[in-house]
Amino acid sequence: MENQELAKTVQELQDRVDKLEAKNSRLTMVLFSGDFDKVMAAFIIANGALAMGKEVTLFVTFWGLDALKKPTMGTAGKNILEKMVTIMRPKGPAKLPTSKMNFGGIGPKLFHYMMGKKNVEPLSSLIELAQEFGIRIVACQMSMDVMGIKSEDLIDGVEFGGVALMLGESYASNTTLFV
Amino acid sequence: MENQELAKTVQELQDRVDKLEAKNSRLTMVLFSGDFDKVMAAFIIANGALAMGKEVTLFVTFWGLDALKKPTMGTAGKNILEKMVTIMRPKGPAKLPTSKMNFGGIGPKLFHYMMGKKNVEPLSSLIELAQEFGIRIVACQMSMDVMGIKSEDLIDGVEFGGVALMLGESYASNTTLFV
Amino acid sequence: MENQELAKTVQELQDRVDKLEAKNSRLTMVLFSGDFDKVMAAFIIANGALAMGKEVTLFVTFWGLDALKKPTMGTAGKNILEKMVTIMRPKGPAKLPTSKMNFGGIGPKLFHYMMGKKNVEPLSSLIELAQEFGIRIVACQMSMDVMGIKSEDLIDGVEFGGVALMLGESYASNTTLFV
Repeated sequence: MENQELAKTVQELQDRVDKLEAKNSRLTMVLFSGDFDKVMAAFIIANGALAMGKEVTLFVTFWGLDALKKPTMGTAGKNILEKMVTIMRPKGPAKLPTSKMNFGGIGPKLFHYMMGKKNVEPLSSLIELAQEFGIRIVACQMSMDVMGIKSEDLIDGVEFGGVALMLGESYASNTTLFV
Repeated sequence: MENQELAKTVQELQDRVDKLEAKNSRLTMVLFSGDFDKVMAAFIIANGALAMGKEVTLFVTFWGLDALKKPTMGTAGKNILEKMVTIMRPKGPAKLPTSKMNFGGIGPKLFHYMMGKKNVEPLSSLIELAQEFGIRIVACQMSMDVMGIKSEDLIDGVEFGGVALMLGESYASNTTLFV
Repeated sequence: MENQELAKTVQELQDRVDKLEAKNSRLTMVLFSGDFDKVMAAFIIANGALAMGKEVTLFVTFWGLDALKKPTMGTAGKNILEKMVTIMRPKGPAKLPTSKMNFGGIGPKLFHYMMGKKNVEPLSSLIELAQEFGIRIVACQMSMDVMGIKSEDLIDGVEFGGVALMLGESYASNTTLFV
């Protein structure tokens, strides 16, 4: 191989390695769960990664969408089953149940209290903080369709997309967590 | 370093980078859960990845095996505890409970209805589709042994293997999800 | 480009590719769940990876900490809510509930019996084995603070750290699972 040709090959290799290394600066999470403790874990990890300078994409699907709902979300323009799901599911971070020790909703309040005493930010602040730090939150369009959730039912600053977008982000990231 | 020697080193580097990049064409998932909604999520992700041309390995373990059971699975040749587990666990995609809002089995029916109205394929079709697209489904041999599940109890086209196979697939994939 | 300069560039590339390939020898898991079956899955995967010669870091947080508690863990020096959480949560692998078929604690006993008949090690042995094989277990400092868990409440050989440590391990690993 000629020296010049070799130099070109090395340049191409550098570009490919750059691309592989770029994954080290990105984190993708699929937030499937709507349990207070798991949503909390997802946003603590997200904020930790953002503080380390990483780009974070949170793809929110199924029950995870409960965490993004506005407390004022209503049932107007929804069919009977969508209305039922809207009424029965918690709306927003303050209403999420814990996966263990929920005690009819007292559990999350106790945890908020215990977290506050140890200076852990409440979930609503962690979400706001992540958004200020530039997290990319993508709500799963298909889950929204099935459950009759409209874009205006969710907090501001949320994008909408599907599994292809999530996979694209995952393949640009070193780490992808399913929470 | 001589030019010829350098060319050989660059060639070796190319092979190594090829191998690292090959991970971008593979996805591995561990399906631990047997909840309808999580199995649904796993197969939606699997079909999305297959449609993007990726090779997908689904390692199915613990409760996830419920999703692969034939509805006709019987208790012949099983000991008393294995019979009990066989009778008590759901058999096949049509019988899986949802992790939330199950309502004694009405929940999954409502979700199937709501998904049908939005043209989302039912779970059994998603599994068939994934198999047609060439998904590799591996049932965890150890879980099968412990719960007394025989190979003929599971749908056709399933392979059998252990944690070493799953880890091997994971290390050949950019993304591994534990669902 | 001069031959000598090119050789230097190739050397740098080799170092970068070495680093990317080094991820193939490491596994990171976040153990969030304290369910017997999920903790079992985490340690089976961990021991499988250790047997394959990989370095394994298990970051244990939230309910997962139940699996690391000494059965003798007491309530001395804890405030009233910490005492309540201490009393109500299971302490150690022998007390963990299963996520399905728990039947008030009979489920895990049945599974231990069924696993024993198939020569699967009990969970406490899997944890010991992993520690002998050199697993790195890191207990989440923030979760411990919030729930009032002290370092002496957990089994020996456990380190303490936060989300930054976990993410650092994850970015040095090809595979990270959230269990």
